[in-house]
Amino acid sequence: MHGYSGDKQAYLTRLRRIEGQIRGLQRMVDEEAYCIDILTQVSAATRALQAVALGLLEDHIGHCVADAVKSGGPEADEKIREASAAIARLVRS
Amino acid sequence: MHGYSGDKQAYLTRLRRIEGQIRGLQRMVDEEAYCIDILTQVSAATRALQAVALGLLEDHIGHCVADAVKSGGPEADEKIREASAAIARLVRS
Amino acid sequence: MHGYSGDKQAYLTRLRRIEGQIRGLQRMVDEEAYCIDILTQVSAATRALQAVALGLLEDHIGHCVADAVKSGGPEADEKIREASAAIARLVRS
Amino acid sequence: MHGYSGDKQAYLTRLRRIEGQIRGLQRMVDEEAYCIDILTQVSAATRALQAVALGLLEDHIGHCVADAVKSGGPEADEKIREASAAIARLVRS
Repeated sequence: MHGYSGDKQAYLTRLRRIEGQIRGLQRMVDEEAYCIDILTQVSAATRALQAVALGLLEDHIGHCVADAVKSGGPEADEKIREASAAIARLVRS
Repeated sequence: MHGYSGDKQAYLTRLRRIEGQIRGLQRMVDEEAYCIDILTQVSAATRALQAVALGLLEDHIGHCVADAVKSGGPEADEKIREASAAIARLVRS
Repeated sequence: MHGYSGDKQAYLTRLRRIEGQIRGLQRMVDEEAYCIDILTQVSAATRALQAVALGLLEDHIGHCVADAVKSGGPEADEKIREASAAIARLVRS
Repeated sequence: MHGYSGDKQAYLTRLRRIEGQIRGLQRMVDEEAYCIDILTQVSAATRALQAVALGLLEDHIGHCVADAVKSGGPEADEKIREASAAIARLVRS
């Protein structure tokens, strides 16, 4: 069980919608749409992906990290470092 | 004809690979993979999308914007403002 | 006492260095340095600021959030939501 | 003369305001303000810095890049590649 397990269907729906956005981008490139219109859709898909990441992260901190903290021990520090590294990757991507 | 037209196939290949990454994310969520592993893949897909955007933008400046500048007239300013707004959306997404 | 209190001096040193980078940018603009060189320094200052934010965030999760989780009760959820909102602002800035 | 030269005073004013924000951050850390409040100010300073970068970039494309394009020759391609690399650094910072 992970933090996001309870919302699995909601995440799958959001990811399927993002998959649709990426296929829409392929159609736009194939039909030679205007560059700026494609860029606007790339920004929208990027924001949707980041929103999924922020949701997963909140679930992760609220479950996996919180559980490790409650259990105490060195695993809690490790989980916090691991979550912080994931946040850093998100901020820089 | 747009800036990216000559590289259409390369962009389609990259977007199909990103579509595969998004489907991989759905599989990970469905099989309840570890949150942090999913987040790592979301960051990779985000970076791949941003790389496509940066490529399209360079092509756009080198073709559409450069052509408008060469023709002179008010359209050049408009194209530069439009490209700058697209860059701002990218930076903030 | 906050998560970062133990590292206060280190954070002050990093922020003073960033202040120096911002003053360096003013000097570059004043002396009409080349635009791209200024942009390179803006990116460096932005990355330094984001690194400070990521450090503060890791300290915050490891102390304030972890303490609230250990105490249990509704405050833990509130702290996690608050930290997630701060992460979202960072990712989008 | 660079793209931003005409707006030099406006850029200096904005950079001085950002310097003030960074000094405000030092004060907050020194007085042990709440972590999340510091993070909110870091996000504000980051956005202000990125806004300066986006302004410089638009001026640069509208002047230095446009001039190189009008002159023709290999320098235009070089300027566009250079600007694109600066955009990539901004997007990734």
